[in-house]
Amino acid sequence: MKFSIERGTLLKAVAQAQSVVERRNTIPILANVLIEADGNTVQFRATDLDIEVVDKAAAMVEKAGATTVSAVTLHEIVRKLPDGALVTLSDDGVAGRLNVEAGRSHFNLATLPKEDFPVMASSEYASNFSAPAPMLRRLFDKSKFAISTEETRYYLNGVYLHVSTSDGGKVLRAVATDGHRLARIDADLPQGADGMPGVIVPRKTVGELRKLLDDDEMQIAVSVSETKIRFATPNITLTSKVIDGTFPDYTRVIPQGNTRKLEVDASEFAAAVDRVATVSSERSRAVKMSLDEDRLVLSVNAPDSGAAEEELAVAYGDERLEIGFNAKYLLEIASQVDRENAVFLFNSAGDPTLMREGNDTSAVYVVMPMRV
Amino acid sequence: MKFSIERGTLLKAVAQAQSVVERRNTIPILANVLIEADGNTVQFRATDLDIEVVDKAAAMVEKAGATTVSAVTLHEIVRKLPDGALVTLSDDGVAGRLNVEAGRSHFNLATLPKEDFPVMASSEYASNFSAPAPMLRRLFDKSKFAISTEETRYYLNGVYLHVSTSDGGKVLRAVATDGHRLARIDADLPQGADGMPGVIVPRKTVGELRKLLDDDEMQIAVSVSETKIRFATPNITLTSKVIDGTFPDYTRVIPQGNTRKLEVDASEFAAAVDRVATVSSERSRAVKMSLDEDRLVLSVNAPDSGAAEEELAVAYGDERLEIGFNAKYLLEIASQVDRENAVFLFNSAGDPTLMREGNDTSAVYVVMPMRV
Repeated sequence: MKFSIERGTLLKAVAQAQSVVERRNTIPILANVLIEADGNTVQFRATDLDIEVVDKAAAMVEKAGATTVSAVTLHEIVRKLPDGALVTLSDDGVAGRLNVEAGRSHFNLATLPKEDFPVMASSEYASNFSAPAPMLRRLFDKSKFAISTEETRYYLNGVYLHVSTSDGGKVLRAVATDGHRLARIDADLPQGADGMPGVIVPRKTVGELRKLLDDDEMQIAVSVSETKIRFATPNITLTSKVIDGTFPDYTRVIPQGNTRKLEVDASEFAAAVDRVATVSSERSRAVKMSLDEDRLVLSVNAPDSGAAEEELAVAYGDERLEIGFNAKYLLEIASQVDRENAVFLFNSAGDPTLMREGNDTSAVYVVMPMRV
Repeated sequence: MKFSIERGTLLKAVAQAQSVVERRNTIPILANVLIEADGNTVQFRATDLDIEVVDKAAAMVEKAGATTVSAVTLHEIVRKLPDGALVTLSDDGVAGRLNVEAGRSHFNLATLPKEDFPVMASSEYASNFSAPAPMLRRLFDKSKFAISTEETRYYLNGVYLHVSTSDGGKVLRAVATDGHRLARIDADLPQGADGMPGVIVPRKTVGELRKLLDDDEMQIAVSVSETKIRFATPNITLTSKVIDGTFPDYTRVIPQGNTRKLEVDASEFAAAVDRVATVSSERSRAVKMSLDEDRLVLSVNAPDSGAAEEELAVAYGDERLEIGFNAKYLLEIASQVDRENAVFLFNSAGDPTLMREGNDTSAVYVVMPMRV
């Protein structure tokens, strides 16, 4: 194998690969990236056995071939090479080493046999469709904060992506919850996604996928089966196992009868919650919302360190209400709001509260109250 | 006590105080800042019993008085208040609370009695002089990387600031070493500093002092005694105990007879060292420098991960030499070089090596070699 490639192109391809690789590995070859050169293209493949990413890059291939080398070391080297450098990678078959050359720099890296690299088995996908990058970005960005980190509830350790109905029409829906709060985000159903099986996309996959979604013009090819999901751009293919479990029936958690409506400037609200929460020594402490005619008072009372109170002018016309929330949860849902106003719908101080952005029902958040 | 102060002014004063305060304290009042309002001025005082910082700020004082309150909480609150806000602080004598009010935000913080706050005893200083901020900045910035972190060698846990001679003239000199490398930085002796006792300025003091030295136009009033050092600007006074120990005779460590001279572009050299060090799994691994007529080859050989080599065009006219160094140490001294060229002076592969910036002898570094 021998090929030359521009440093920037190589860096981009290797960066995606090394990010999938787990830092601590009991299986040495999982620390490596599989490099395959053929035609005018080099493929970089990395896996943690649950996620596989394949990056294709244009290169001047002198001799086709393949080898595997430490993803982290290769990435570090390429990152430190000067911008614009031409990098030549070649393996010398005898010593089992990969030579990396750029200008006056010369590296010689240990390799492992390409035959030992675990390539993910190809699958039949039940559903194939195309979705614009901004749509997928919104679905995952607005829901991922609610993913549970409790390993025992493994079926909550991801975003539940599935087809549902809203206002009589079909939607592609992302739901995440940890039992304390829930996010439900809808998007127009892409053509061809109708028969898609519902899948739980693991947290790590959501993170890796995010890097494919920065380009507003990009169309992402999505393929879904009962056990796997694949996202592909022309250069990058990300394949991931989905969580083998049943996502709970979240619809029962979303309150339907909440009628007490509060409308508040979202960024003003978030800043005020952040300020009053300062006096509580732990972030988990409760913030009390006291609602009265067009008036919201946020307050915290921490016997050790002190008390804090802040008043906000709001739109509220229902009867007086006092309700407590975890300050962190309030901050997280308030920071999801892209438009000016957040709308809260309350029932009583003991019932789950619903939050949405203005009157848009395509992004809905539920948060459980706390006793204050 | 009651006073009003602009949020930006308050933030600056409290920021410096809370940075001196130790995060973990067995003595509760050490977590607090002592606030004293009198005349048109408020003083913020914080201490860890070794360092004391006093910040003065202009304020509208309605009622003189003093109290103490958690430095970290007060800082957090002020940081989160909107820019330009007017903040009013007042204590209500009965409940022992401090009220902080700004716009519609209201905080009520626990206090501790001002009488319990440990104010550092005032001292007689043997020497008082004035030094420009950029001069002190250079002395400490270029030496602090070499401060030892070994607690058993406590007398090396700071920068030794003292009066010495160089080229027949008197200089103010900063020296730091950890036994593996040494930095010796000289500056013109300020008027009045002649009789200054040599003192070891602790690492934390060096860090806190740095924040006083950003303004190029500022003159710093320095006072030194056998046990304390004080740095003062018109608004901030930083007083610190010095390390009670004897700094070793560093002059014996600085090689005088090194004649093999290498001249190298400092940033090119640092980038190359950084690149070749990538293949060694730990940063502490040795980099070999192989010198020949106007040619330097940097190389690393790590049996597990691979090998790296880079050639640099340099100015070197002496006989061939191979010498090894800790890559981290080489990087650190190379990054001190402000001018284009670094000059290395070698003796043999087993002897300490001297490095300086061009032909400037006012900043000299010594680094011990490693067997490679």
